[in-house]
Amino acid sequence: MDIEQFRKAGYQAIDNICDYFYSLGDKPLVSPVEPGYLSKLVPSSAPDAGEDFDQISDDFKELILPGITPWQHPSFFAYFPTSCTFEGILGDLYSSSVSNPGFNWSASPACTELEVIVMDWAAKLFGLSPAFYNTSEVGGGVIQTTASDSVLVAVVAARSRYQKAHPNTRIEELVVYTTTQTHALGKKAALILGLQIRVLEVSSDDEFGLRGDNLRSSLEKDKQAGLKPFIFIATVGSTSSGAIDNLQEIGQTLDNYPNIWLHVDAAWAGVALSCPEYREPLRLADINEYATSFCTNFHKWGLVNFDCSGFWVRDRKLLTEALDVTPLYLRTKEGDAGTVIDYRNWQLPLGRRFRALKVWFVLRSYGVSGFQKHIRECIDKNKTFIGLVINSKYFKLVTEPSLALTVFRLLPGKESTQAQTTERLNELNQIFFDLISSRKDLMLTKTSLNGEVCIRFVVGSSRTTLDHVIRAYNILEEEANKALQLWAEPHEVAV
Amino acid sequence: MDIEQFRKAGYQAIDNICDYFYSLGDKPLVSPVEPGYLSKLVPSSAPDAGEDFDQISDDFKELILPGITPWQHPSFFAYFPTSCTFEGILGDLYSSSVSNPGFNWSASPACTELEVIVMDWAAKLFGLSPAFYNTSEVGGGVIQTTASDSVLVAVVAARSRYQKAHPNTRIEELVVYTTTQTHALGKKAALILGLQIRVLEVSSDDEFGLRGDNLRSSLEKDKQAGLKPFIFIATVGSTSSGAIDNLQEIGQTLDNYPNIWLHVDAAWAGVALSCPEYREPLRLADINEYATSFCTNFHKWGLVNFDCSGFWVRDRKLLTEALDVTPLYLRTKEGDAGTVIDYRNWQLPLGRRFRALKVWFVLRSYGVSGFQKHIRECIDKNKTFIGLVINSKYFKLVTEPSLALTVFRLLPGKESTQAQTTERLNELNQIFFDLISSRKDLMLTKTSLNGEVCIRFVVGSSRTTLDHVIRAYNILEEEANKALQLWAEPHEVAV
Repeated sequence: MDIEQFRKAGYQAIDNICDYFYSLGDKPLVSPVEPGYLSKLVPSSAPDAGEDFDQISDDFKELILPGITPWQHPSFFAYFPTSCTFEGILGDLYSSSVSNPGFNWSASPACTELEVIVMDWAAKLFGLSPAFYNTSEVGGGVIQTTASDSVLVAVVAARSRYQKAHPNTRIEELVVYTTTQTHALGKKAALILGLQIRVLEVSSDDEFGLRGDNLRSSLEKDKQAGLKPFIFIATVGSTSSGAIDNLQEIGQTLDNYPNIWLHVDAAWAGVALSCPEYREPLRLADINEYATSFCTNFHKWGLVNFDCSGFWVRDRKLLTEALDVTPLYLRTKEGDAGTVIDYRNWQLPLGRRFRALKVWFVLRSYGVSGFQKHIRECIDKNKTFIGLVINSKYFKLVTEPSLALTVFRLLPGKESTQAQTTERLNELNQIFFDLISSRKDLMLTKTSLNGEVCIRFVVGSSRTTLDHVIRAYNILEEEANKALQLWAEPHEVAV
Repeated sequence: MDIEQFRKAGYQAIDNICDYFYSLGDKPLVSPVEPGYLSKLVPSSAPDAGEDFDQISDDFKELILPGITPWQHPSFFAYFPTSCTFEGILGDLYSSSVSNPGFNWSASPACTELEVIVMDWAAKLFGLSPAFYNTSEVGGGVIQTTASDSVLVAVVAARSRYQKAHPNTRIEELVVYTTTQTHALGKKAALILGLQIRVLEVSSDDEFGLRGDNLRSSLEKDKQAGLKPFIFIATVGSTSSGAIDNLQEIGQTLDNYPNIWLHVDAAWAGVALSCPEYREPLRLADINEYATSFCTNFHKWGLVNFDCSGFWVRDRKLLTEALDVTPLYLRTKEGDAGTVIDYRNWQLPLGRRFRALKVWFVLRSYGVSGFQKHIRECIDKNKTFIGLVINSKYFKLVTEPSLALTVFRLLPGKESTQAQTTERLNELNQIFFDLISSRKDLMLTKTSLNGEVCIRFVVGSSRTTLDHVIRAYNILEEEANKALQLWAEPHEVAV
């Protein structure tokens, strides 16, 4: 493809993307394809001769798009949102056109320098302490692929710091601390690194957030058993219910354990720190006082296209001392002089894409006020949904709603709940969830809290209007009715 | 930005990218910016109000592009190439427009299904054994971000397999095996996982490839010392010189150690397996017979934009048994039924981008024949360069050239080499390299082999013509002359 052919194919791609977004709201939320659909439509080997790009882009529309789940659909209320803004698409496009492996400053100075700058922009947007700014030259921010990668980097650096302070520690003695509400990334990090994991119980009385006492007693017990806890992965806004660990009590507890790293995973909720009114409930002051590292994903609720996970540390040396490998062929005079950041030493892989560009595009095009407006409008729409749930004869909140997330369940009449076993109520909610899942016009996901099957509802797209929320609620009532009828009949169900 | 504003900004982006590629050959190869340049040009906080996108895209041209190193410049002969094709850009663009976290099949069925298919296309393109095809339902291929990620996955899975076979193994006893020519990714993987590493010496007599005897004696020694080697990271096409480990001897040696994983890292050279004439020198038959896993990066020499690392395993269960973490909120009926691949269990992070699309676009648009043509033409251009070096009065090959890579050094006259110490010759080559590096019209990198400073020359861009190669050679002669004069004078130099 030469430059003029690219111009033509590029315009066409832009037009196709416009068409996609014009029709987004009409698409089914669940892709209608069955496993293996594509292998029936595509040859089993690459063609020998090159094909015309018109044919290829037609096939994108005809073969690929039907197999895409439209995460930006206005009636997508499942999981957490995945951002896809036009500014983000343009950032990815320009970034791809200057493709480079980005492993050190000189691989393309603009890539490193813009990341240094926008991570400070974001730190200010979220109210993080200047200790986390890149301009502090002590702490700093970096873009990782995902919150899993961010936590993995934190665990590796924490292990390295702990082992330096306690050189005779065996890896088998080390323990990663999490709670039952920590995202699976905690378990996966431990699995990858071959480490033990401690999963602390949390209580619904504490809205599923960990308290200091619980942490303290577990640390003491492990210490007595000769184990070495070295990192606690705290959560601000858990996946199941938006739970927030009590960072103040945790921080105070960890003050007695200076070699235990406190990583705060706010993958979804962190971007709400952009609004000053959410800083206190999201415990910003404690993050700023106690966190060794902090993570929030722009690519969830933060208007930047996947992947883009923001990760900040209070002391960048903790990363570079754990991760720096610099053979001769990666040495540069700027790196040797220490006048630049070589971000490869802040992450696991060597190469890295130019992701700062899409953050820059988004933050400039929206501005701080536009970013805040997006967050506030999602939370406001969820408030409408919460009101409907509270006043409903079908549903009950399972826990205090968090920002744009509501967790609720279906009950067989608000007065009769005491008479039902957990099993029976779980059956009901599983039937209800199966009915919702079979619909093509909205998408929600389920979770489990205290052994109870619950339904999650999350607003995250700027394309979601209040009408979409109300329509979704009406569908939920309709399916609740059906679920109650099915549940009353003799019925087999797998929970 | 609404849809019509996006259309306008999108067309403009395509036009800007066309302009960039029209002027690519005129750009300086070394970005003229100094460390910190961008912080002087960009505000230290995000704007409060949103800005016009015209201003933002103008700033991309005026502030960012000058800080980009043009890796696709026709006179870029440094490191290894980083691909940037128009098909790859379009793949990234379409992929970004359907942004989704991709962690399981249902997150967007097309993303998983297309990856399953194109990884088989690529396996066939490279002549890999059907054991590595996804259709085998035993082995399979997956796209990782980089070769570092691929090797990290291999090491984690190998450790898991070893510990399952030998449950009492302590992590401290485990040893990752590499050679002095293994890419730094081996050392970094060991560092990340807290594992010991054994770095085996290789000899220039063997063109820096590891022999079986060397491996065997080291394994026996470690076994006697109570250590547990569990993976050997072999290289096909090393960074320094394109060295190839003797996979047949290594494979035969490892036949006696069934729990030692053989990972073959062919990050750069692997794509040359697309040409049947290179399969024997690149030891394809041994890869197919002995490798537990194999990696080659499309994003280096394989026409697909960064990032896109192809990774194949002979037994996918070795990955999923080491990496599967499936909490309730990630369970799906298709995953539970085992009718689909959930690629999150084949990699470290949870989320993943839709990278198969750009592979599909590239392989369809080029076809097998076009892909082969690209590889062959780069190798042919390097042959011209080799001829010039061999017939030169200045330069000498340091080791047998490999595909499109030549490693050479400057000598003070071919007859007088015996009289010079290694130190003095290294001084000369360092002076020579510094002179080359100060030029803006070509880029090469250096390396060290057997303690000798050498210069690497790699052809990788389809935009590089024979004229560019000859012009580069003439510049090298010109700078060699200057270097010899400077070296003859009393002169301080840091090597």
